[in-house]
Order: sequence, then structure tokens, then C-alpha cells
Amino acid sequence: MDRIVFLDYAGVAVFAATGALAASRKELDIIGFLFFAGLTGIGGGTIRDLILGVPVFWVPNPDYLLVCTGVAILVYFAAHLIESRYKLLLWLDALGLAAYCVFGAWKALVVTGSAPIAIVMGMITATFGGILRDQIAGEPSVLMRPEIYVTAAMAGAVVFTALHIMGMPLLGSVMPAFLTAFVIRGGALKFG
Amino acid sequence: MDRIVFLDYAGVAVFAATGALAASRKELDIIGFLFFAGLTGIGGGTIRDLILGVPVFWVPNPDYLLVCTGVAILVYFAAHLIESRYKLLLWLDALGLAAYCVFGAWKALVVTGSAPIAIVMGMITATFGGILRDQIAGEPSVLMRPEIYVTAAMAGAVVFTALHIMGMPLLGSVMPAFLTAFVIRGGALKFG
Amino acid sequence: MDRIVFLDYAGVAVFAATGALAASRKELDIIGFLFFAGLTGIGGGTIRDLILGVPVFWVPNPDYLLVCTGVAILVYFAAHLIESRYKLLLWLDALGLAAYCVFGAWKALVVTGSAPIAIVMGMITATFGGILRDQIAGEPSVLMRPEIYVTAAMAGAVVFTALHIMGMPLLGSVMPAFLTAFVIRGGALKFG
Repeated sequence: MDRIVFLDYAGVAVFAATGALAASRKELDIIGFLFFAGLTGIGGGTIRDLILGVPVFWVPNPDYLLVCTGVAILVYFAAHLIESRYKLLLWLDALGLAAYCVFGAWKALVVTGSAPIAIVMGMITATFGGILRDQIAGEPSVLMRPEIYVTAAMAGAVVFTALHIMGMPLLGSVMPAFLTAFVIRGGALKFG
Repeated sequence: MDRIVFLDYAGVAVFAATGALAASRKELDIIGFLFFAGLTGIGGGTIRDLILGVPVFWVPNPDYLLVCTGVAILVYFAAHLIESRYKLLLWLDALGLAAYCVFGAWKALVVTGSAPIAIVMGMITATFGGILRDQIAGEPSVLMRPEIYVTAAMAGAVVFTALHIMGMPLLGSVMPAFLTAFVIRGGALKFG
Repeated sequence: MDRIVFLDYAGVAVFAATGALAASRKELDIIGFLFFAGLTGIGGGTIRDLILGVPVFWVPNPDYLLVCTGVAILVYFAAHLIESRYKLLLWLDALGLAAYCVFGAWKALVVTGSAPIAIVMGMITATFGGILRDQIAGEPSVLMRPEIYVTAAMAGAVVFTALHIMGMPLLGSVMPAFLTAFVIRGGALKFG
């Protein structure tokens, strides 16, 4: 279990960065960066845990809030160095999507043991942080081409769930699933 | 209890169809249909169960996800046959509203025994699937004339709760309540 | 505890009034007023309680719904007397923000004992009622200048949490925190 928690922190961090970049595009001040970093970083996982009926992950472990805070401050001071903030946002979002569809599916499998629930929770975990960010910021939605976005999350969750149920060791199901999601979403960004 | 569960499946199915029709209007691909069918079909009931503090209905029973999936696929292949997808969406939404305001009130009564909570939960269950669909799709909101929309849900929930508390048998409180909500919303659609 | 519950009712009442004023600006009928009063009045606290994993406050105690209903009816009959409904909405929203960032932080401290969680929950409680209202009404968002809005909520929550942890009596931590949030937000409204 310890190893896969890395995915969780990675997902929170990159989603928090996309939130901070959205705040930067809106020219908000540092508290606005914190707000959108937190909203995007922990939003999808919060909805996942509420639906699964387990404690919301960041309440007993405020480390996740520290991650969001650190990322927000970093982006606040570095954002002006970045040439295309929106492009970076989209690629980080793709990384977060890949990490979170796998981690969400894994957590749902642990809690419920059900493959269809694992797939759906992987999709929800991966997509709702970005949905909340775009809705509240009034940004052009990452879901503009929702098929490729949701499809990538679904593919990653399906690959992980299938390999995991077939008895693959954790890393052997995590890596192919992560790559599947990232390649599909990244391909859509590059060639779409 | 078995009989009223029919209302629940019916509500999920018609709301899922409205979500798939929204995806069709946006010209999404099949995964986009699945996403919006699921979001709309199970969204209102998910919020209801979270607020009531009971397990979210589709987690222990993934049949509901199958219903959404089946409806999404059906609409995907049939949508081009439909003359006015938006009109159909509105009428199916009215059916879902009527089914869900009754079912939501019933479930809240069973869980809490409180009439005001039953009425409010009927309204929430009936309206939030459509609210989520319209918010995320960026569609013209069914709530554009929220009075008639929310009023219909409220009327259905009030009629059901009153008849049920007066001791009417289940069917005798469900049917008048369902018809009340559907006639009010349908009247608003036809003459509004 | 009894005394601080006053803050909760006050927060619900003024947020409900802002929801009803939003309904008035949209020229909705009385049910639309009820809907937006309820959504805004109890929305932020509902999200707070779900995340904390405690019963949603208004379910065991429907008094809160009565408050929202009464406020909605009052605003419905009085709104035409008000010269600038939007200005009143903003000032009431500032009052609600100040009451709710303190109450949310207090409740989170009681439940979790964690200062960072208290601060974040104060911010969530104070801001999400207004976020829901503006999102669903399609109104110009109070978050347009989110920095000052979220900053006020954060400052109030930080002041309360710090004083409370230092062992100040309840009133001695509530009053400075409430005033901090209200003065910051009010200053932004007056001079921003």
C-alpha cells in the first residue's frame, strides 16, 4: 500500500498546480492561488471518498493541504516564467488524470471489491477536480472534448482494474494503467 | 418496498436518457454519452443519500450503472432518428422529476421520519441530476424557469408525504403524487 | 456551545436572504425564492458536515429549513422596497461570510481537533453557499475578486482558531474573528 500512496500525493500535487495555473490566468492574488490549488488538488478525491462512505482522505491527514499550499506558493512565484501557462496546465492535468484514475480505482476496489464501481470511481476521481476548477473559475472547460478526457480516465481505470483482478502485483497493474491513460490523453492534446 | 424501487429505476433511466440527449446535442462520442447519462441518472440520488447519511444507492448495487450504460448506448444509436432532441429531453426530464420527487420523499421518510425533510429531499433528488447535467454541459438550464420546475417537484413531494403520513397504502400515495408533479411540469412545458 | 449556535442561525439567515435576493434579481416566483434561500442558506454547512463526516446539521433539526422559508417569504414581499438589491446582497453576504468562517472553524475544531482542518473548513463553510448560489443562478460571481472574498474567510478562520487554541473563552475568540472577516470583506466592498 505504501507505494501506491505516492500516486495519491502526485495526483494531488499536479492537480493543485493546474488549479494554481488557472488562478494565475485569472490574475488572482496568493489566496486565490491557494483556493484553486486546494479545490483542484483535493476536489476529485473528496467526492470519491464521500461516495465510498470512507473518511475524506485529507481530514485525518492535513499533509495533503500542505502539498497544495506549497504548490500554490511555488506556482505563484514561478508562473511568470512560464511561456504558455494553459499548455502546461493541460499537460499537468493529463498527468493528474492518469495518476488519479488509477488511484481512485485502487481505493474503490479495496473498499468495495467491485470492478464496475472501481472503474466508475477511477473516472470520478480523475475528472471532478478539473470539472470543479473549470466551473468555478469560468475557464474554457477541459471537458470541451469530454470524450477524450473521460475516455482516458476510463481506459486507465479499466486497465488497472482488469490487471489487478487478474492478480498482477501492484506495480504491474499501476504502470500499464497509468501509461494507458496518459498516452490517450496526451495523444489527444498533441494531435487532437 | 419492492414496488416503489421501480420508481427508482425508472427515474435513473429517464434522467440517464436526458443526459445522453444532452451529450448528443453537444455531438460527443459514446464515452461522453456514458458520462452524461451517469451524471444525470445517478447525480440527484447520490446527493440525496450523502445528505441522509446512508450508503450511496448505486455503490452496493451496480445495476444502476448498467441501466445508465444501456440507456446511453440506446440513445447513442437512436438519437439521430429523433426530430427534436431538446423537446424529448424536456419531457423525459419531467417524467424523471415526477418519479424522483416521490421516491426521494419516500426514502427520506423511511430514514428520518420527518415530513419537512422528506419534502426537501424529494425536491433535491428530483432537481439536482438536471442541475448537474446543465451546469457541466453548459446547456440552457432546465431551471431557466425554476419556479415551475422546482414547484412541480415540491408539489409531488408534498402530496406524497401528506398522503403517506395519513396512512394511505403505498400505491395510493405514489400515483397521485407522481401525477401531480408530472401534470404541473408538463403543463408548464405545453402551455408555459 | 449554546451561544455559538446563534452564529449558525445568523449565518443561515443572512445567506438565505442573499439567495432570496438573487431569486428576486432573476424575477423568480415564491418557490424560486425558497429554492435559492435554501440552497445558499444551508449549502456551505452541508458541504462542511459531509466532509467532516458528521450528520448534516439541518436533517435532525429542520428548524434551519424554517429559517430559510421565513427569510424567503420576507424577502419576497419586501424586495421591491429595496433600492439596490445587489448591494444589499453583497453586504449580507459579507455578514454571512464572517459568521460562517468562525462557526465552521469552531465545528471542525470540535470534531477533529486539528487547526489546519479548522481553517480550511471555516473557508469552505463561508464560501460555498455563495459559490452554489452564483453558479446555479448564473449571476456575476461574488468570487469575481476571489482573493478578497476568500482572504476574508481565511483571516476570520485563522484568528478564531489561533485565539481558541490559545485558550481564550469562546466569546473572546468569536468576536475578534468575526470582526476581522467582516472588516476585510466590508473594506473590499467599500473601497475595492
